[in-house]
Amino acid sequence: MRVVVQGVGAIGGTVAAALALKGHEVLGIARGAQLETIRERGLTLRSPGGVQVAEFPCVADPSEVDWRPDDAVLLCMKTQHTAAALDQLVAAGVQDQPVFCVQNGVENERLALRRFANVHGVTVILPAEYLSPGEVAAFGAPCHGIFDIGRYPGGSDAADETLAGLLTDAGVQSFVMEDVMASKHGKLLMNLGNIVGAALGEAERADIVAALTEEGEAVLRACGIPYAAVDLSDPRREQYMQTQPVEGAARVGSSTAQSLVRGAGSVETDYLNGEIVLLGRQAGVPVPRNAWAMRLAARMLREGLAPGAVTRQEALDALGM
Amino acid sequence: MRVVVQGVGAIGGTVAAALALKGHEVLGIARGAQLETIRERGLTLRSPGGVQVAEFPCVADPSEVDWRPDDAVLLCMKTQHTAAALDQLVAAGVQDQPVFCVQNGVENERLALRRFANVHGVTVILPAEYLSPGEVAAFGAPCHGIFDIGRYPGGSDAADETLAGLLTDAGVQSFVMEDVMASKHGKLLMNLGNIVGAALGEAERADIVAALTEEGEAVLRACGIPYAAVDLSDPRREQYMQTQPVEGAARVGSSTAQSLVRGAGSVETDYLNGEIVLLGRQAGVPVPRNAWAMRLAARMLREGLAPGAVTRQEALDALGM
Repeated sequence: MRVVVQGVGAIGGTVAAALALKGHEVLGIARGAQLETIRERGLTLRSPGGVQVAEFPCVADPSEVDWRPDDAVLLCMKTQHTAAALDQLVAAGVQDQPVFCVQNGVENERLALRRFANVHGVTVILPAEYLSPGEVAAFGAPCHGIFDIGRYPGGSDAADETLAGLLTDAGVQSFVMEDVMASKHGKLLMNLGNIVGAALGEAERADIVAALTEEGEAVLRACGIPYAAVDLSDPRREQYMQTQPVEGAARVGSSTAQSLVRGAGSVETDYLNGEIVLLGRQAGVPVPRNAWAMRLAARMLREGLAPGAVTRQEALDALGM
Repeated sequence: MRVVVQGVGAIGGTVAAALALKGHEVLGIARGAQLETIRERGLTLRSPGGVQVAEFPCVADPSEVDWRPDDAVLLCMKTQHTAAALDQLVAAGVQDQPVFCVQNGVENERLALRRFANVHGVTVILPAEYLSPGEVAAFGAPCHGIFDIGRYPGGSDAADETLAGLLTDAGVQSFVMEDVMASKHGKLLMNLGNIVGAALGEAERADIVAALTEEGEAVLRACGIPYAAVDLSDPRREQYMQTQPVEGAARVGSSTAQSLVRGAGSVETDYLNGEIVLLGRQAGVPVPRNAWAMRLAARMLREGLAPGAVTRQEALDALGM
């Protein structure tokens, strides 16, 4: 299996570098300065274990790839960019190769299944940051992270086993699951607080995040959607991965916070809190808290607010807490 | 109610012009040459009844609109452009105003409900063409078309009644429905042949389209999704709308064919045949015919094929017919 990593950011970069460093065949699809730097001098991976430079080929577009039957595509962009990435893959002639959604949220699999028959979900428990072109940091140790992998909408197959084996060998402890979407819905619940962290910065916010999560759990239960605990209570964390300091790399926080810090024109809130809002509205379950979180994200983008710009009291007032 | 038409193409243009010609308050959101021409000399609507020029204000982006509580947004772009349009509405501060999806497919309502609480579906039976900047043709008579309107995911409210009244007055015979999505799924079945028409041009294709529709019906039945007949068997057609010739306007065909003729970089097949493919794959129902239709669309885009470039025999062979 050649692993084609589309979107070489914090997650895609860590995965691509870790696989390449173990001698596994990797091909990156990246853009702009990230692409240029990787081509010139490889991708630097900073981790608690030290600094390593991974060399692997990288192209700008799937049309430049000489696609092979043993390729597996790992989608590593945020959900708001998935449809465009899938269109590129279709235009490049990808058809039967497995497509793995190594992404937060639960909409990517649905977007992919419209276009490809062979779709897989991956739950990503991997604290990482994009530092600068050609440089990422992964904060997990002893492993970089923990992945749950399985076929969408359910089951598992040989491609899941193969990818899990490669990733585990590369230091991303991976588990093949028959119902990976239950794991991904558990991760979705964990991501509902991302925008609050990004908005409130260092302020105390555990109770606010808990209020969002509680509403999310109520919606999933009402919809009969199973979810597995992949949060800090997951015993696999203690065995395989704790967050550790990395020299030369500060942890900004969630991927949502990272996007806001970088001034990205969009954040993934529509596919995190927005998933709960959508499901709640479809099922007739009130979702005022997560709807507020979405308005907060829209406002931060519109007004160009930095993390920490919103006070704890403002959030408590908005939520009637 | 002021009707804000976002996407002033064949459908949006006909609706905006028809409303404005009856003196109803309309605001268009359009782009490029279409925007410039409408601003300079209005929008020309050619129909079996003759040629009329409608004058209404038009802007380039929702951020230029002075939003009012009595505004209703009509989304009239194709599905592949809906997410970006919704992002613009959010950025412009739209929040509680009703959003009507005047679009084919059944994914737009879902995209909108993530971001807005007040979402409505509209089934569009309205043969129309975009002719040139500032000019559209609508081929229906005595009415331009027939719309079913209702709230998503179900029910109806005062906004549905108000919009239906305005549209009916403007010559788009509109019906408020409690389950508009059943009507929209019926329209979805009708649209499964769009890409075949676009590919085969004038060749006989009724049997091929029927094969796609049959597979689509099997998928909807397996998923327990209701669908209403809105095809030529719908008795409302005889009463309200038949397709008639329009002077100075040739009918190219479906919206998919129109996109291909105009060399658009994407077609809506992912949200027509792709909806059946997605539902089938989720439910474990084989969807080889509609999956072929999607590959056909991808190939026509990739190779820049014109309508008529694919032979009937090639299609029959691919479908094992």
